[in-house]
Amino acid sequence: MEPSELVDRILAGDRRAIARAISMVEDGAEGLAELSAGLFPHTGRAYTVGLTGSPGVGKSTLAGELVRAARARGLRAAVLAIDPTSPFTGGALLGDRVRMQDHATDPGVFIRSMATRGHLGGMALATPEAVRVLEAAGFELVLVETVGVGQAEVDVAAATDTTLVVVTPGWGDAVQVAKAGILEIADVFVVNKADREGAEAAVRDLEQMLRLGPPLDWTPPVVKTVAAAGEGIDDLWVAIDEHRRHLESSGELERGRRARLLREVESLAVEALRARARALLDANPDVVDDVLERRTDPYRAAAALAERLGGGAM
Amino acid sequence: MEPSELVDRILAGDRRAIARAISMVEDGAEGLAELSAGLFPHTGRAYTVGLTGSPGVGKSTLAGELVRAARARGLRAAVLAIDPTSPFTGGALLGDRVRMQDHATDPGVFIRSMATRGHLGGMALATPEAVRVLEAAGFELVLVETVGVGQAEVDVAAATDTTLVVVTPGWGDAVQVAKAGILEIADVFVVNKADREGAEAAVRDLEQMLRLGPPLDWTPPVVKTVAAAGEGIDDLWVAIDEHRRHLESSGELERGRRARLLREVESLAVEALRARARALLDANPDVVDDVLERRTDPYRAAAALAERLGGGAM
Repeated sequence: MEPSELVDRILAGDRRAIARAISMVEDGAEGLAELSAGLFPHTGRAYTVGLTGSPGVGKSTLAGELVRAARARGLRAAVLAIDPTSPFTGGALLGDRVRMQDHATDPGVFIRSMATRGHLGGMALATPEAVRVLEAAGFELVLVETVGVGQAEVDVAAATDTTLVVVTPGWGDAVQVAKAGILEIADVFVVNKADREGAEAAVRDLEQMLRLGPPLDWTPPVVKTVAAAGEGIDDLWVAIDEHRRHLESSGELERGRRARLLREVESLAVEALRARARALLDANPDVVDDVLERRTDPYRAAAALAERLGGGAM
Repeated sequence: MEPSELVDRILAGDRRAIARAISMVEDGAEGLAELSAGLFPHTGRAYTVGLTGSPGVGKSTLAGELVRAARARGLRAAVLAIDPTSPFTGGALLGDRVRMQDHATDPGVFIRSMATRGHLGGMALATPEAVRVLEAAGFELVLVETVGVGQAEVDVAAATDTTLVVVTPGWGDAVQVAKAGILEIADVFVVNKADREGAEAAVRDLEQMLRLGPPLDWTPPVVKTVAAAGEGIDDLWVAIDEHRRHLESSGELERGRRARLLREVESLAVEALRARARALLDANPDVVDDVLERRTDPYRAAAALAERLGGGAM
């Protein structure tokens, strides 16, 4: 199928076309730039929410409940579950199958796992592209769920309007939370499985950590949920909505989206140059041999390479 | 202090000079390229071991015990604890203070937290540089500890010879492990806190996941430890040593180190070009305005930028 035909089908909401486009994003497939360019004018209208937290905190269940809440409000909703690349499992699709059942017959819902095996820019570049496929297909709320603590969270936070950080009671004390570096990316904290012992302590710890930090324009609320029982979802919806209104009234929504696009253009350009750098190094193995044998050092070798790549622009 | 003087002091094992150099790496300070070049001829001899796993699994305690094991074998050992950037805590130094006490008076031990606020290339580039500072200072074993599941692990795995993946009983079922994408980066699995219920089940799950995967030249052993009680550390030491001998006899040690240096040179060159890309975008806000207003798309804007940056090389 030609990219232009694929674009038309996605705009018409064709589910197989959407799935195929996201696979192209995953693989960094040929035709991706054309597909992306074709969809781009039809994007920018969805609201995006990131869900992040350690494995087992219940992000998938929470995402399913937020989809239900969106549907109850007449909104079309999609979930993009970002999985770290795993050659063992081929990208954990198990979770998908489990979650799909609930919403399988609803054309207003689309749930999809995404790995980032082939995309040159990794998750940071693949995620916004996949989100735009879903936006172009008419989904008004796009949830981006990721596994892991660290860079994965930062990347998701950088790709969405509102970032939920999900923890469970007893997940870790305040020092661990701070160590994981997630305080500063959270727009809303969710203490899920809040029917377990220690939920109040977790809420208190988080609120105290926030008080100890620098003053913020927006103080992340801490919301308790029991996603598996559908409890607390309305409170969470309200918290997301309040954050959205804060972003809109402060101008942060526009500024954030502009900053994201700037970084994306920068990264796409840099990845194009990385491909050229790799080709040059492959064609000239002596460059790395010289470093390995300590005849030169990485900085000097890199400076020579950058000069060869970018010399014309300076 | 001039970089050349700092180099001399580091080679002499001066602890304050080592600390200062690692701070320069963290900050991406001026003079870093010169410092790095000065140290580079004195590197390449240490063995590096990465410790990775979720917060709370006991990586720091385990690192402390491995340091003790190294000292008992007459080896100088350093620990580099990579913390995700946290403006709230200024890089979790608390853990340091706790762990330092044990080894504080031993000149053969150096323990240090590192954040990566300022380094342009992030953790992926800062980590090998900091490791080389410690190598040049004469440490024969360098442990690199990181927090988080996902990209952080992959980066640590990419920066060390042997990667330990640390889990605890009940940390998550096999699907969660697979989902976290850590199976394929582990050279040795450690089930820490193995005196807790479920340790045998965790070992069994991991071994089964490994059997379900593709055949490997090296099958990661699964080692049980109770780091807080010093139990299982000798077994772990043997497992690391066996992996090292496997790498050496298969030629993988050399190939892996060469591949790492190649990626590092490539990334350093690319980061230099990223800085130029950022400067160009800052000077030309209309490029991003055009994308934001959907007059062009990210790919087209990036291609134009890459052309301007790297046009001379094509």
